[in-house]
Amino acid sequence: MLKVPEHQVAGHQAVEGHLGPLVDDSGRFYKPLQSGKRGFQEVEFYESLYSDARIPDHIRRYFPIFYGTQEVNASDGSGLHPHLVLQDLTSCYKSPSVIDIKIGSRTWYPQASNDYIQKCMQKDLETSSLLLGFRISGLKAFVSEDYGFWKPERKFLQNLPADDVKLVLKKFVSSNAPTNDGVQPDCLLASEVYGGSSGILAQLLELKAWFEVQTIFHFYSCSVLIVFEKESVLNRKSSGAAVKLVDFAHVIEGAGVIDHNFLGGLCSLIKFISDIVASPIEKCISIVNDTKSEKCLDGSLSSVKIMPLSLDSKED
Amino acid sequence: MLKVPEHQVAGHQAVEGHLGPLVDDSGRFYKPLQSGKRGFQEVEFYESLYSDARIPDHIRRYFPIFYGTQEVNASDGSGLHPHLVLQDLTSCYKSPSVIDIKIGSRTWYPQASNDYIQKCMQKDLETSSLLLGFRISGLKAFVSEDYGFWKPERKFLQNLPADDVKLVLKKFVSSNAPTNDGVQPDCLLASEVYGGSSGILAQLLELKAWFEVQTIFHFYSCSVLIVFEKESVLNRKSSGAAVKLVDFAHVIEGAGVIDHNFLGGLCSLIKFISDIVASPIEKCISIVNDTKSEKCLDGSLSSVKIMPLSLDSKED
Repeated sequence: MLKVPEHQVAGHQAVEGHLGPLVDDSGRFYKPLQSGKRGFQEVEFYESLYSDARIPDHIRRYFPIFYGTQEVNASDGSGLHPHLVLQDLTSCYKSPSVIDIKIGSRTWYPQASNDYIQKCMQKDLETSSLLLGFRISGLKAFVSEDYGFWKPERKFLQNLPADDVKLVLKKFVSSNAPTNDGVQPDCLLASEVYGGSSGILAQLLELKAWFEVQTIFHFYSCSVLIVFEKESVLNRKSSGAAVKLVDFAHVIEGAGVIDHNFLGGLCSLIKFISDIVASPIEKCISIVNDTKSEKCLDGSLSSVKIMPLSLDSKED
Repeated sequence: MLKVPEHQVAGHQAVEGHLGPLVDDSGRFYKPLQSGKRGFQEVEFYESLYSDARIPDHIRRYFPIFYGTQEVNASDGSGLHPHLVLQDLTSCYKSPSVIDIKIGSRTWYPQASNDYIQKCMQKDLETSSLLLGFRISGLKAFVSEDYGFWKPERKFLQNLPADDVKLVLKKFVSSNAPTNDGVQPDCLLASEVYGGSSGILAQLLELKAWFEVQTIFHFYSCSVLIVFEKESVLNRKSSGAAVKLVDFAHVIEGAGVIDHNFLGGLCSLIKFISDIVASPIEKCISIVNDTKSEKCLDGSLSSVKIMPLSLDSKED
């Protein structure tokens, strides 16, 4: 029944005899409970997410649905192991484009063990986290039926400087092939996926407003997952663009203080995304101008024809 | 001509033969140029603050006026030393209440020397910075002619947990004596100083809006200074409440990324201040209720009588 998730882009993976998450056919995601405090903290977080009346319903929808814990056969063949049973966030998509962005310039908290702190500090310094306030942990973007998916190496994604992160975030919402270095990403899907009243930017801003006031949780080493369906956008259907928060093994109590570490990183990501939303048309036109041909405006660059898609035409 | 500033609450002080800032009678503040890179960085920052057209005028007013550099006799008796000549931010006040809040959970940046990073890390961990995203570096609050100023020890202020920081920020805008531990601070001046359309909170929110988009500077180890005139508020005149940013020896280039470290800390401070603004009336009423006497409403608690001061009656 259970199988390795097809669209997982970050975290431990259930391949080659390793312990990792599994999915079933009914839209559930089985995440092995981490040993000791971490597993306990993640269960405790999900339980309080549903029981704590201070969390507004419109915020709860940014988290995967939690169905409890269950003992299932572990992916590493070690037999029964307790798993968190969660919503499989990609099960409703045909060919989902997924990016996992770990938020916060600091992934450790003072209450953690010294070894853990040292490990995190080193990684935050070596990756984009310290400079950008976040790092891209993984990415899988649908390109076309022919091409399949673009899935860059995680090591490459984690260490990118600002300009390259922006380029990746543009390629993630472009119609042209991401690996052709000579061609600028056309950002053709930016206004539909990132922009609009229910797009990624609007969702991130809703989360930001909550993080400006909530003092219940501090989310260390937690990720923002962005998912959408590229083919739907190209067929002028809803992109299904969704933001979800994932990975709560290092969530601690807020103790009366906002999560300034997460909020700062989230605001940094928002600045990257909003810059892209603010400029796609200009970028596409500049591509057209580069070709020095008005013919482009009549179809040889499909990006320009599809450009005027309404920002607010989505249904969800 | 030059003398030791009367209202300095943080930083090196020009006392007992030490090198520190001086002021003159014309409203200028002479800050000794720090040795090496730091002094250079601070001059460079002030120069770009005025020359960089990307900085809006309404943001420039949050910084002290910069008059250039000048060699003056140093406070430590070592003879001529180059000084930054700045606006003396307290010169327009008779008995200013001043608080210096160092913003950011991290006061170091990766480009700094290892020794400096280690020193900062240790201090961020030992003080409120890591948990709160800021620490109170110093404070001097006018209480009354009789009492004079309340000036707690810096060591005490820097290490406070969330609840005590909130208490200090309440005492800073209260009419009753701050050292009487049995009595709750009455927050009598909160609506006038922190609240209102031109109060501290409104100014912090204006700064926050800029920090959400500016990628020019990263302000490490920089402080928000809050100043106001208590007597003016009690006499129903403008509080003169002002936010200023100070200390730019560790400002570095933003390089296309927002200052998520400063922004996160600023948002944390804003949450503390806005909680106080949202609750002063309630607090004062609860003090009245504690006395179980309606008489209080007729004058025995002056706080209640003065309470309905308009939030928007200030002129500046």
